[in-house]
Amino acid sequence: MKVLTFGEVMLRLKTPEHLKILQADTFEANYGGAEANVAVSLATLGDDVSYVTKVPEHQVGQAAVNEIRRFGVDTSRVLRGGGRVGIYYFEKGTNIRPTSVVYDRAYSAIAMAKAEEFDWEKLLDGADLFYFSGITPAISTEIEKALENALALCREKKIRVVCDLNYRGKMWSTKDAQRVMRRLMAYVDVCIANDEDFESSLGIPAYDGDMSRGIEQIESYKEGMLEIQKQFPNCKAVASVLRNLYTVEDGDWMGIYLKNGKFYESPVHKVHSFEAVGAGDAFGAGLIHAMLHDFEPQKAIDFAISASVLKLMIQHDANVASETEIEQIMKQGGTNLQR
Amino acid sequence: MKVLTFGEVMLRLKTPEHLKILQADTFEANYGGAEANVAVSLATLGDDVSYVTKVPEHQVGQAAVNEIRRFGVDTSRVLRGGGRVGIYYFEKGTNIRPTSVVYDRAYSAIAMAKAEEFDWEKLLDGADLFYFSGITPAISTEIEKALENALALCREKKIRVVCDLNYRGKMWSTKDAQRVMRRLMAYVDVCIANDEDFESSLGIPAYDGDMSRGIEQIESYKEGMLEIQKQFPNCKAVASVLRNLYTVEDGDWMGIYLKNGKFYESPVHKVHSFEAVGAGDAFGAGLIHAMLHDFEPQKAIDFAISASVLKLMIQHDANVASETEIEQIMKQGGTNLQR
Amino acid sequence: MKVLTFGEVMLRLKTPEHLKILQADTFEANYGGAEANVAVSLATLGDDVSYVTKVPEHQVGQAAVNEIRRFGVDTSRVLRGGGRVGIYYFEKGTNIRPTSVVYDRAYSAIAMAKAEEFDWEKLLDGADLFYFSGITPAISTEIEKALENALALCREKKIRVVCDLNYRGKMWSTKDAQRVMRRLMAYVDVCIANDEDFESSLGIPAYDGDMSRGIEQIESYKEGMLEIQKQFPNCKAVASVLRNLYTVEDGDWMGIYLKNGKFYESPVHKVHSFEAVGAGDAFGAGLIHAMLHDFEPQKAIDFAISASVLKLMIQHDANVASETEIEQIMKQGGTNLQR
Amino acid sequence: MKVLTFGEVMLRLKTPEHLKILQADTFEANYGGAEANVAVSLATLGDDVSYVTKVPEHQVGQAAVNEIRRFGVDTSRVLRGGGRVGIYYFEKGTNIRPTSVVYDRAYSAIAMAKAEEFDWEKLLDGADLFYFSGITPAISTEIEKALENALALCREKKIRVVCDLNYRGKMWSTKDAQRVMRRLMAYVDVCIANDEDFESSLGIPAYDGDMSRGIEQIESYKEGMLEIQKQFPNCKAVASVLRNLYTVEDGDWMGIYLKNGKFYESPVHKVHSFEAVGAGDAFGAGLIHAMLHDFEPQKAIDFAISASVLKLMIQHDANVASETEIEQIMKQGGTNLQR
Amino acid sequence: MKVLTFGEVMLRLKTPEHLKILQADTFEANYGGAEANVAVSLATLGDDVSYVTKVPEHQVGQAAVNEIRRFGVDTSRVLRGGGRVGIYYFEKGTNIRPTSVVYDRAYSAIAMAKAEEFDWEKLLDGADLFYFSGITPAISTEIEKALENALALCREKKIRVVCDLNYRGKMWSTKDAQRVMRRLMAYVDVCIANDEDFESSLGIPAYDGDMSRGIEQIESYKEGMLEIQKQFPNCKAVASVLRNLYTVEDGDWMGIYLKNGKFYESPVHKVHSFEAVGAGDAFGAGLIHAMLHDFEPQKAIDFAISASVLKLMIQHDANVASETEIEQIMKQGGTNLQR
Amino acid sequence: MKVLTFGEVMLRLKTPEHLKILQADTFEANYGGAEANVAVSLATLGDDVSYVTKVPEHQVGQAAVNEIRRFGVDTSRVLRGGGRVGIYYFEKGTNIRPTSVVYDRAYSAIAMAKAEEFDWEKLLDGADLFYFSGITPAISTEIEKALENALALCREKKIRVVCDLNYRGKMWSTKDAQRVMRRLMAYVDVCIANDEDFESSLGIPAYDGDMSRGIEQIESYKEGMLEIQKQFPNCKAVASVLRNLYTVEDGDWMGIYLKNGKFYESPVHKVHSFEAVGAGDAFGAGLIHAMLHDFEPQKAIDFAISASVLKLMIQHDANVASETEIEQIMKQGGTNLQR
Repeated sequence: MKVLTFGEVMLRLKTPEHLKILQADTFEANYGGAEANVAVSLATLGDDVSYVTKVPEHQVGQAAVNEIRRFGVDTSRVLRGGGRVGIYYFEKGTNIRPTSVVYDRAYSAIAMAKAEEFDWEKLLDGADLFYFSGITPAISTEIEKALENALALCREKKIRVVCDLNYRGKMWSTKDAQRVMRRLMAYVDVCIANDEDFESSLGIPAYDGDMSRGIEQIESYKEGMLEIQKQFPNCKAVASVLRNLYTVEDGDWMGIYLKNGKFYESPVHKVHSFEAVGAGDAFGAGLIHAMLHDFEPQKAIDFAISASVLKLMIQHDANVASETEIEQIMKQGGTNLQR
Repeated sequence: MKVLTFGEVMLRLKTPEHLKILQADTFEANYGGAEANVAVSLATLGDDVSYVTKVPEHQVGQAAVNEIRRFGVDTSRVLRGGGRVGIYYFEKGTNIRPTSVVYDRAYSAIAMAKAEEFDWEKLLDGADLFYFSGITPAISTEIEKALENALALCREKKIRVVCDLNYRGKMWSTKDAQRVMRRLMAYVDVCIANDEDFESSLGIPAYDGDMSRGIEQIESYKEGMLEIQKQFPNCKAVASVLRNLYTVEDGDWMGIYLKNGKFYESPVHKVHSFEAVGAGDAFGAGLIHAMLHDFEPQKAIDFAISASVLKLMIQHDANVASETEIEQIMKQGGTNLQR
Repeated sequence: MKVLTFGEVMLRLKTPEHLKILQADTFEANYGGAEANVAVSLATLGDDVSYVTKVPEHQVGQAAVNEIRRFGVDTSRVLRGGGRVGIYYFEKGTNIRPTSVVYDRAYSAIAMAKAEEFDWEKLLDGADLFYFSGITPAISTEIEKALENALALCREKKIRVVCDLNYRGKMWSTKDAQRVMRRLMAYVDVCIANDEDFESSLGIPAYDGDMSRGIEQIESYKEGMLEIQKQFPNCKAVASVLRNLYTVEDGDWMGIYLKNGKFYESPVHKVHSFEAVGAGDAFGAGLIHAMLHDFEPQKAIDFAISASVLKLMIQHDANVASETEIEQIMKQGGTNLQR
Repeated sequence: MKVLTFGEVMLRLKTPEHLKILQADTFEANYGGAEANVAVSLATLGDDVSYVTKVPEHQVGQAAVNEIRRFGVDTSRVLRGGGRVGIYYFEKGTNIRPTSVVYDRAYSAIAMAKAEEFDWEKLLDGADLFYFSGITPAISTEIEKALENALALCREKKIRVVCDLNYRGKMWSTKDAQRVMRRLMAYVDVCIANDEDFESSLGIPAYDGDMSRGIEQIESYKEGMLEIQKQFPNCKAVASVLRNLYTVEDGDWMGIYLKNGKFYESPVHKVHSFEAVGAGDAFGAGLIHAMLHDFEPQKAIDFAISASVLKLMIQHDANVASETEIEQIMKQGGTNLQR
Repeated sequence: MKVLTFGEVMLRLKTPEHLKILQADTFEANYGGAEANVAVSLATLGDDVSYVTKVPEHQVGQAAVNEIRRFGVDTSRVLRGGGRVGIYYFEKGTNIRPTSVVYDRAYSAIAMAKAEEFDWEKLLDGADLFYFSGITPAISTEIEKALENALALCREKKIRVVCDLNYRGKMWSTKDAQRVMRRLMAYVDVCIANDEDFESSLGIPAYDGDMSRGIEQIESYKEGMLEIQKQFPNCKAVASVLRNLYTVEDGDWMGIYLKNGKFYESPVHKVHSFEAVGAGDAFGAGLIHAMLHDFEPQKAIDFAISASVLKLMIQHDANVASETEIEQIMKQGGTNLQR
Repeated sequence: MKVLTFGEVMLRLKTPEHLKILQADTFEANYGGAEANVAVSLATLGDDVSYVTKVPEHQVGQAAVNEIRRFGVDTSRVLRGGGRVGIYYFEKGTNIRPTSVVYDRAYSAIAMAKAEEFDWEKLLDGADLFYFSGITPAISTEIEKALENALALCREKKIRVVCDLNYRGKMWSTKDAQRVMRRLMAYVDVCIANDEDFESSLGIPAYDGDMSRGIEQIESYKEGMLEIQKQFPNCKAVASVLRNLYTVEDGDWMGIYLKNGKFYESPVHKVHSFEAVGAGDAFGAGLIHAMLHDFEPQKAIDFAISASVLKLMIQHDANVASETEIEQIMKQGGTNLQR
């Protein structure tokens, strides 16, 4: 079973020790992006996974590829060519101080690529499952086209498609997102929708925006999930992460999984997170891993949410925890300790 | 509206990662001091601010000046000459382990300066507001004199004076502090008094020394604030920070502001602090910024306490958070999260 | 009063900032081991203490010795010779992510030493108290023999013996541990038994293995402590640390001390730990310090548990907090703050 | 005497310890650019200097401004607005391994600015000397226009103009450079031309491109310098740095200064450089400092080359050596040691 | 054309900034080994290369694999199982201070492996060229057997064999080395012999041990190379690096290549090295790359020695310079600079 | 044979990577001083050595003691009490850029101590050799007295005295130095005099101050050495280091030793130093080690100069090279390489 993921990889420049950018004279450099993170996490779990993106031919582009390859992802399908490596400056918040990000992602190699550069016959060769997030079509209209070409071929080849809606307000309006994502949902077999994604990406209400009480809104989440399946009948399963967030680090996290008309709920995990980035991608990778190995739905959602909350304790963008480590969290079932 | 602050800048040598000094072989170097911190914070908020101190002519003295100048403070009025840069070794505690400081501040350039070196006609030129903390007159009797000369000129020129009482038991006795500070209070328009300052600096009871229940003592605080105005009729407003501290990091913080005979109370902010140094100075800067921009008293105290608690999440001595960032905390109104 | 401790010192290679070993390209290097940690802590408290181990003659062996000597331990009795310095790779967990350790300690100089290399007449010369943990006899059968030789001489010379049972499942089976430790207990004057040690090292039930409710099991702990004294009449006192652990960092800690037929209980300290390694060794050192200075039993257990919980806030393996700092924690009596 | 410099400031991301970008997971962050470097160096020398550029309004833009302000440059005239902060990734070579740079400077705030955003009446207010390098007009045609507007006003206001030709092959062709720079030379009072600049920027032959024997070509350099004055009669003085480079670090450096029809030559300095970036800017700043203080021509060239070679021993882009330190090098007169 | 290399990968723990191990409290961690280095270098040059070793199943073993995989080497053939990851502590010397290494490599996973664990039919599947160094058979007699099995299969399958004699006195005696290496030479198509290897590994005199005048001994080197071909007629080519070393960093380097009865000599490169480890492996990889791409013998030796001397300027064990970067050095032809 | 050394220990705050203090935001912290360095070096060589100084009772004072104790020096005779730990800020130069030091050593604990605090009967108990440098009497007149008391008791007890004249122009005038040092020389058995020490400390001409040609002045050095013995007949031997310094790092070093009326000269060592601090102290320690172990005079001077030049390659103030490592340099006899 081979997975292919498609998206942008960026350089993250993080200030050390919560320093403000104004105070920093070094940056920790790490490369990530939703689809790269999912790929790294799957490879770490032992799955066979390829990643498609486009990076410039210079050393910074190569460093991005190497970081992903290091964890076992096949990067032989990555395209090379003009443009930059997108950057985001990352200032980790704490407690009442929000995390602050300065994006500098415009004009990247992938953003400047043409749809026809992506030869999906070759790129999808051997793939059994295709993953993308809602960030990918927001990169450019050419990439939106490239993605749709990929999805069309997936349908043809009966390659399963998993999509994490992942709405990003800094990249496009809800109007544009809905126009595109609703069209692409026609190709999606399994959909991950969190928080504002329901409304912003699909126009389906589910969550009122109050981050401190996501879990209390479980019923409207479920309605939203059912509505997704109703509007997009191709979509066989929907998964969501629900959170009550109390501070930048403190929160309660749970997952729900709608499959075969039934809801599966994970325990609630009470966490004090160390690094919030990539928890959603870890969830997606956990879910795909469960799909590849035919976990029962209850185990699937338990595993996916365990992967997600364990990621909160791991630095950088991608979840490099092993299956054993995730299973240990799963066994704790929402309690915080084992030995 | 131009502000002038006057005091000592010290080199802070901090061990990395909570190491004890016994374990450290590097120190993080940072320059700060109450009045320097207030100046940096005001400059960051966009206000026009100068800082007066005296530093030696060598590179370490210049480095102190540069660190302050970097954030936009006018340092053209700083004096140069003999003596050292005072130092404090800083070992950050955590949870039940208290923060430990070794002071090595004697014989600094400012401590060895003569009162007449400070030509206040020039130094105060163009100033609309003068700020000092109770640390400044504790440096030496010459600096006490220099300060009183400045204050006398402020009165003459109708320059507003803000004083943070800031009692430091390691620098002088309560007896000395009261003798001096009570005299200087005659010049003060707005007074900031926290915790032990009421008693130690002015001999006015307000707080029983139990750090875990400062907020519960709000009534005696209010009495102390009223008593300040009674004893020092020149003092048009008094502000205080009240805290319940539970561990080195955990606490509840609120501000009160007495102005025009009325008390204004901020919400209580529940925090887990990252770096406790300079929160009082951030409060003072927040209050001065409010004065400079004629905030309503309620907004003034809300802004000042928001600046103070946000500083708890920022490294080094000075608050380099922007007005937008502080306003965000203010909007949260004591809850811990926004997005 | 001179103390001798005997055991293995290892190199700890710790990833910075909770990085997984997979992510790290530097390691923080520190040298420690139960008996070395006890020695360093005693020396820091001002006691006269020697440490016996065996290290290779190369620089890494010398670096281990130097790190211990640096804090005032007499290392002139350390043996030199073939074998390696044992290593443990240390990945500090946080919250729900457990700390992860990769042991690489086989074939160390001490593990490959012969019993007869240890000339106890010389090594114990002048000693009034001998300390070892249950880790030492688990190193090898030769070291087990060497230790028993030492203990026999202690009995002869009326040197008091303190043993921390310290069961390590990665080093030997409970069956082996019980066989050996029950035999060695005949020489022990004061025994420290925590958590699983009762059962694993001595076959005496006391604790059900639920880390979240150790304190609730205080009665069965007490029964276990009494049973130790019953089965090993030579053992004049037994001490234990009881813990409720909620996350990797959060927990409640208390100590009990059985002496002269009476139980002495410390207050419960609520902690959020920064570095969990070596808290048991800090407890042991605190207890020995109390013995050397004839603290009353209540003060002894209060001091020992205060040393232990303060260690939780200090980096590296050994407690380098001063007596004054520990007494401050003791004065707080389980509350979390002083000033 | 007030100086104004105009150009782009970039973020330099440097790998530590000669690591290849492929090997690095941190970058040292520093902000610089030819005109910013000249400004910082002049401010360090005690001169009154302002810097004009445009940066985005976010924290990275502010950090660039702060770094320059820190050393005493007036940054109050800096424009803010859309676009990025340009970046260059910097991999320091050594010996036979060349330094490697990856440019990511397109689409910066200044590159996207319009000529009319620069209100030169205000920006040049009070200025006595204006400095730019050949990099500035290469940024964009709008910036070329903005620069020409500035130069026209300088002529009108009799503000002296210093230009470092500074040809950059990665930014424009020699054809474009010559077209523009020859036009701008009409406004230039003092011109700095090094190495390939003669040919590439002005089409005047002087140097054959063999880096190992620049000094041997002194006669053709002199002819080139005379030719510049001949072709651009407005140009009252020309200065050049001549180098024999043997490895990435080893070389011989000297300066020549043509003024009032006479050549002034500095001694040859034999150096092993530590950080080659910014040596030309240090030369320029040294020369301007000499102009501002009316140094004799011989002293001017000696001071400028001393500043330049001392910069080779100083990290980051700008020369932060003091006048005293430069004079010490000057006194050594090309020998390598003093005490 | 696919290459397979076979050997041990070790963890290098390097003190920062030339610190002695006695002074260090951090280590830089890097993974390498002769055959791993050759593989990484070939992958960086764009060649298809697999690496065979055995590592333990824990995270440290995985980290070693990941570091190699990161640069594009296929690590899917690596064995997992019991034993440690071998370590060498590395203290970089400078000038007259020699580099100091403490080996801790015994009992590694590969050293404890059985010959039969290596299924060469599978491991060599698809390979066109097999590389090993003289370090591999020195690991253990089982690995010696495993290696001979591999070589026998190579002969059968007509897979070309390249061997770098690489004598290591700390691993075996010259007697043992000669006994084994002379036997294995029967399988070798291309042999790399440097310095003492001639004598120590094969008993053939070539070099008198005076490191300061290797190049002067070129004639006896040539005789040694001819003698190798005479004694081992299967060996179609022999390559050597000759060096005059003047200090830890300073030296002259050249390569000779004996092929088809003719000697090809590279220019002499004068270098001041930054990191001496792995220069021989870089030479080997350069030579293999030349073989894979059918470079003319003169170009082959020029490329190989250029790779080797460029590696001297690159941190860590493996040469991660690109083909372009190596060609640049080759173009300089022994001079030290280009642009 | 037991050695006692007496002097001041200071905290060295060094900027990383040649950064100017103006650029640094961390300092590397190390503790040293001439007599502490000699003690550490002797302990590293296996000699029995105690160190006497006075440090404050706080953690910084203790850290200084621990750093010395770490390397095996007996620090049980160190006094504790009021005052600071003196500091020197250290900016390492390179090539033509001189090393720059900012001293902040006034008011240290030892500088403020009274002569009578030093109970020499106890402090010198068991000592066979006493070492001090000319820095010690320059600290204060009280310390000058304390030192003279020590020397008088040495004479009485026939404890050999070694003095390194070590003139420091920043501490006292040549006039004061000569007055004091000439008096103290009456007690000295072996004198080390370098460079300006002859003239500045004793008023004896030997060296013309030209650092680039110290070795050329060997004859006037010899005359100076003879003159010392003539003027101070108690002085049985004189040793000197002669240097030709070419840059901050490059130089030629040799030693001369005058004993029993005969001169012994070491080979000249050509070096490129890494850390120049403490080379003189390493020389002194080498010479004392030679005295303790009755080396022949030729071996003594060869060993001492080898220790000195090897120290140039070792970080921090003290020579922590082993006897074996120094002997290796000695064997090279001025050539730069061994293996």
